[in-house]
Amino acid sequence: MAVSPRRQTRSPLQVRLAESVLSPGGWFATLDEFHRWLSETASRAYMNVRKVPLNGLSGWEVERHTGNIRHRTGKFFSVECLDVHVPGRTVSHWSQPIINQPEIGILGILVKEIDGIPHCLMQAKHEPGNHNGLQLSPTVQATRSNYTRVHRGRPVPYLDYFLDTSGREVIADIRQSEQGAWFYRKRNRNMIVEITGEIEVAEGFCWLTLGQLHTLMSVPDLVNMDARTVLACMPFSGAGLTSALMSALTSAPSAEPGDGFRAALVRSCDPGEAGPHTMGEVLSWITDMRTRTDPRVSLIPLNEVRGWRRTDELISHETGRYFDVVGVSVEAGGREVGHWDQPMIEPSGTGVIAFLVGEIDGVLHALVHARVEPGYADVVELGPTVQCTPENYEHLPAGARPPFLDEVLGAGPGRVRFETILSEEGGRFHRARNRYLIVHTDAAAGIDHPEYRWLSVSQLGELLRHSFYLNIQARSLLFCLTTLTTTPPAPLAAR
Amino acid sequence: MAVSPRRQTRSPLQVRLAESVLSPGGWFATLDEFHRWLSETASRAYMNVRKVPLNGLSGWEVERHTGNIRHRTGKFFSVECLDVHVPGRTVSHWSQPIINQPEIGILGILVKEIDGIPHCLMQAKHEPGNHNGLQLSPTVQATRSNYTRVHRGRPVPYLDYFLDTSGREVIADIRQSEQGAWFYRKRNRNMIVEITGEIEVAEGFCWLTLGQLHTLMSVPDLVNMDARTVLACMPFSGAGLTSALMSALTSAPSAEPGDGFRAALVRSCDPGEAGPHTMGEVLSWITDMRTRTDPRVSLIPLNEVRGWRRTDELISHETGRYFDVVGVSVEAGGREVGHWDQPMIEPSGTGVIAFLVGEIDGVLHALVHARVEPGYADVVELGPTVQCTPENYEHLPAGARPPFLDEVLGAGPGRVRFETILSEEGGRFHRARNRYLIVHTDAAAGIDHPEYRWLSVSQLGELLRHSFYLNIQARSLLFCLTTLTTTPPAPLAAR
Repeated sequence: MAVSPRRQTRSPLQVRLAESVLSPGGWFATLDEFHRWLSETASRAYMNVRKVPLNGLSGWEVERHTGNIRHRTGKFFSVECLDVHVPGRTVSHWSQPIINQPEIGILGILVKEIDGIPHCLMQAKHEPGNHNGLQLSPTVQATRSNYTRVHRGRPVPYLDYFLDTSGREVIADIRQSEQGAWFYRKRNRNMIVEITGEIEVAEGFCWLTLGQLHTLMSVPDLVNMDARTVLACMPFSGAGLTSALMSALTSAPSAEPGDGFRAALVRSCDPGEAGPHTMGEVLSWITDMRTRTDPRVSLIPLNEVRGWRRTDELISHETGRYFDVVGVSVEAGGREVGHWDQPMIEPSGTGVIAFLVGEIDGVLHALVHARVEPGYADVVELGPTVQCTPENYEHLPAGARPPFLDEVLGAGPGRVRFETILSEEGGRFHRARNRYLIVHTDAAAGIDHPEYRWLSVSQLGELLRHSFYLNIQARSLLFCLTTLTTTPPAPLAAR
Repeated sequence: MAVSPRRQTRSPLQVRLAESVLSPGGWFATLDEFHRWLSETASRAYMNVRKVPLNGLSGWEVERHTGNIRHRTGKFFSVECLDVHVPGRTVSHWSQPIINQPEIGILGILVKEIDGIPHCLMQAKHEPGNHNGLQLSPTVQATRSNYTRVHRGRPVPYLDYFLDTSGREVIADIRQSEQGAWFYRKRNRNMIVEITGEIEVAEGFCWLTLGQLHTLMSVPDLVNMDARTVLACMPFSGAGLTSALMSALTSAPSAEPGDGFRAALVRSCDPGEAGPHTMGEVLSWITDMRTRTDPRVSLIPLNEVRGWRRTDELISHETGRYFDVVGVSVEAGGREVGHWDQPMIEPSGTGVIAFLVGEIDGVLHALVHARVEPGYADVVELGPTVQCTPENYEHLPAGARPPFLDEVLGAGPGRVRFETILSEEGGRFHRARNRYLIVHTDAAAGIDHPEYRWLSVSQLGELLRHSFYLNIQARSLLFCLTTLTTTPPAPLAAR
């Protein structure tokens, strides 16, 4: 019988993760070393991206009868159209272009102890949609087309560790959704696998502790979306983790401003702490939201889309809002293939993605929203408190304005515990950037809205062991929130 | 903020459930009383069902362009066709009729303490597919068409307790799938809600303890499918439950044969007991099976089905195997509507649904199968060790014969711990009956198959808190297995 290895001689995983969180250095002794390495890596790689007409992309074709845009091999992805009815909404019916990529890719991070401290193997990687060149990616970021080598590129380094995990410690392994506004039922397999023994560090790869990754998360556009979603799946919960972090906090030489917030956050990682809702109540609420909501969603031919303009150059909404579908031509060195064309989604404006957080009985909770997006496989996922591009709501009735948006945008600097700009998937989205915010409220107990609930970090972590509960934005933000266990939340103005 | 009631003054739920399991009587002091009540109830209700031509059902129509069979109101359900490709299987491509019922119904059981012991409110209910008249059903068994009153029937008793649960204890509330071979993505909301205070017991309803339900489970065709799936969602796990059941077991006046088996089963309900696989490993295995398996399933018009014969009377497979789609005309007293026609699925033969169970380090485990059925919303669900109608495999190559079928059918009586015939959903299936078996092996540790895993009762219970992990057959069998904690597993021949 296949029984996986148990290493009873080591500390439990959660305690080892706490050690990694608390470690300022390891493979890189300091983050200065990391930044130097990143600059050197950047100097050896390049990616030139220019916009080209959507209708003339090499390797791609517009299907005659549907207007859908697909690769000539039938692989990778296609741009199709989604017709959406969501009864009861202010805007209850629309159609839109959408990316259909049914194959399940792998996003994987290798973990290994170096000098007794768990490190993550990260890759500095170009993506055509990045506005700033290299970003920190997971060890492996592979579509099925990648690893079946449809585009005859080089093999994906380290992929075999994820295709066959037998005999290794699998820390996380779960399919999760991606942007339900731009992708039709896209799912990727998020994996974290721990290895022992020697392993070569390939060009463009480096080992970072969780503590270093925590600090790097506040650097704009550095840690990419795929890295964030995998890092969020790192089990960051447990009494052992809380007590390790709490003792580090209380043994610090001097009290810092914000330590009360940090203590409440660390307590939030302990599943033994009671909150306003038991897990049973949270699951029942999700069941209720998924049962009540009855969106009718169907793929239709892209040439039947209504409210969008299509030219040889691009597809855009009649109002100029939401997003364009554009074409790009890519020339790269240091990536699997030297040259290719592809369609991309280019959103208009910079989005706002925010958690409102607050203490309830001394335990920090985040306000999650049961959110409908047309591309979700299962109707509703839990998103951040606020997730929108404010400009997209300016022409709509006031009833369509997202709840809590004004509270988040109007928060004074003392209440903003985390703020940075992060990029979304640079393989499909062109310069899609969002402002990620964690905003503190001292009135958490007074907020009651049927589509929102206050959840602790450990409850969010419990949901993350299963597919399709937390959306990609909430997963990114959850990882941002956990970084505040180690990086002081103030002063923010200095960043 | 909506905070649900906590009753710190009562015992934890799992201990109260153990008390209900151990209680031989309550509202009915004995099961003889129950059987008398059931006979009396049966004498006051009737349902006459006769087969009529499928093409002449009152209220139903055959769509001209598709051949699909649908209700004239567009409600209830339709009979359509599924085209299925499952790469790598012995039979890798087929099409078949399938029931499409996209709306999510409610299956709910009310729980209430009577003399301090939790009881379940059950209903004796006719369904047109039942071969024996009344069966024990959940408190509420309502399609959305039922509760929006499409067929202008009487209101569904007790439904409001499930539509608004605020202020009540929600013991379970989760959407679960149904037969993926006959239903296209059918899901029902399985709910268990505890109430306090007075409540009227309507005609045809009664209160039973879990211990009484355990005993009644071995009566052929008595506890219906909807009751079984809800009862399986009753949280039957926890150290408190195990210690309550264990102390009842050890304080019994005399040791019975099979007590070693029972002790291993009771230990299996304790999440603290280690097994061959951690939950993380189980979840990773499920992710792997769901990622590797790539069935292509699409709804097509029923008049494009291949390999099936269609007459005015019925639709049947060219070989006569699998199932027929038939029409029935129903006349009922004591049900919501007095007369109606409907299509039904009538399977050929009696199926075999079996768990192989065995001790691993003194803890009982059941062998589950990662099973593909075309109608599942999420590709793969965990099913019983064996789930098939043996006759359907007689004409197929030996490679298609289900693993472990011969071991289950060939088990001597000493190894068969549970055996009875149970009916499937009598509202859609005509006389669909399966032989439910729990077969003991003393060689569990020697069985290793990539599509199968050994799981404990508490692990199965943990998966049951979430949607679409355990299929309907496995849920029924899991409830059968838990009945063996209280009803002695031998002698079986006496049944």
